[in-house]
Amino acid sequence: MKKAVVLLSGGIDSSTTLAIAKSEGYDLYALTFQYSQRHRIEIEAAKAIARLFDVKKHLIIDLPLDQIGGSALVDKSISVPKDRSLDEISSGIPITYVPARNTIFLSFAVAWAEVLETGNIFIGANVLDYSGYPDCRPEYIEAFEKMANLGTRRGVEGEVVFRIHRPLINLTKAQIIRKGLELGVDYRLTKSCYDPDEQGRACGRCDSCLLRKKGFTEAGVADPTEYR
Amino acid sequence: MKKAVVLLSGGIDSSTTLAIAKSEGYDLYALTFQYSQRHRIEIEAAKAIARLFDVKKHLIIDLPLDQIGGSALVDKSISVPKDRSLDEISSGIPITYVPARNTIFLSFAVAWAEVLETGNIFIGANVLDYSGYPDCRPEYIEAFEKMANLGTRRGVEGEVVFRIHRPLINLTKAQIIRKGLELGVDYRLTKSCYDPDEQGRACGRCDSCLLRKKGFTEAGVADPTEYR
Repeated sequence: MKKAVVLLSGGIDSSTTLAIAKSEGYDLYALTFQYSQRHRIEIEAAKAIARLFDVKKHLIIDLPLDQIGGSALVDKSISVPKDRSLDEISSGIPITYVPARNTIFLSFAVAWAEVLETGNIFIGANVLDYSGYPDCRPEYIEAFEKMANLGTRRGVEGEVVFRIHRPLINLTKAQIIRKGLELGVDYRLTKSCYDPDEQGRACGRCDSCLLRKKGFTEAGVADPTEYR
Repeated sequence: MKKAVVLLSGGIDSSTTLAIAKSEGYDLYALTFQYSQRHRIEIEAAKAIARLFDVKKHLIIDLPLDQIGGSALVDKSISVPKDRSLDEISSGIPITYVPARNTIFLSFAVAWAEVLETGNIFIGANVLDYSGYPDCRPEYIEAFEKMANLGTRRGVEGEVVFRIHRPLINLTKAQIIRKGLELGVDYRLTKSCYDPDEQGRACGRCDSCLLRKKGFTEAGVADPTEYR
């Protein structure tokens, strides 16, 4: 069986990506980070999705990104923006951007893939209904792929060539949801909200909630999310 | 004052790099990782060197790389190679290679540099008297630099262009030591050994000890290391 390391946050995109990797015949190695994010409820979502798709192994790694800060997601003194219009969401890079987050996450994925002797890494990055994060763009992911091949044992020895699969890159949120439903994703299990309450209920007003709602509406599917 | 993030492990190379950054007029932000390495004594060395060069801030970040494994440095069931010849050391990639270590470390450096609003990152990578690690090679570091500029807010907005300074890249260990002595590095404070004993004394027989000894010999300087 071919193996794939899949970055799994427990949201719509990464959960759908996991389902796609499964449908392509990979043995799944899911990788989740507890990075001092305020929305830690997503870790439980990631665990539930990992179980649903019968992953071979689910690694959950603690990263103290609050020591670095610079984002509303890891620094509780910065507010998460609410009630922005879709135009506002799609222009510029918001304060919920976490410096170098995907670079850090993909670096760990490369390390684990080396140990697993595979070059296949999946990430749910996409650039249509998204928050303008620079580390979701295709040109960034291509540059990461090149770097990974130059900086690893298996890349250098030519045995394994790293490929960062990004199956959602040009899909809208609605297309992602439809694809996931075809593949058996239970979106009730997924969490998107940047600022959930203590019971894990979504705020319904942050950029991530708004993109999620828009996705379900455009897909013509009832939104299973419990908003507070 | 211009700022620089400097990767500081507490060995000869990173300590000398810190001294070089200081001599170039940077305010220093030292970054050290406790990555479940068997040679944790180097954390104390990094702290001592950071104090010696009066860094503005020293961040020590815990990374559980033992969850990933794949290297003698983070997996105690794998032995550290001893008594290898210099030819053996310089051919191939040894089991002390830690998968994607520099990529992980540099990713955190990029994150911190973004928050500090600087693009200057220093790493002590070098390719002459070294252990054949793929993530020390110049072509890798150039690729990392490109990726960092594409994947960050400040890279994309063009305000800051990341530069991964590698002042030691083409120096021998002897040249590095001579340079460091000129700049006030106290090498008694530094630690290189991959497999120190509980008192922190060096084994004198791992690749890192052997390269260190060779460096002092070729520099014509007494080796201040306490071997067991």
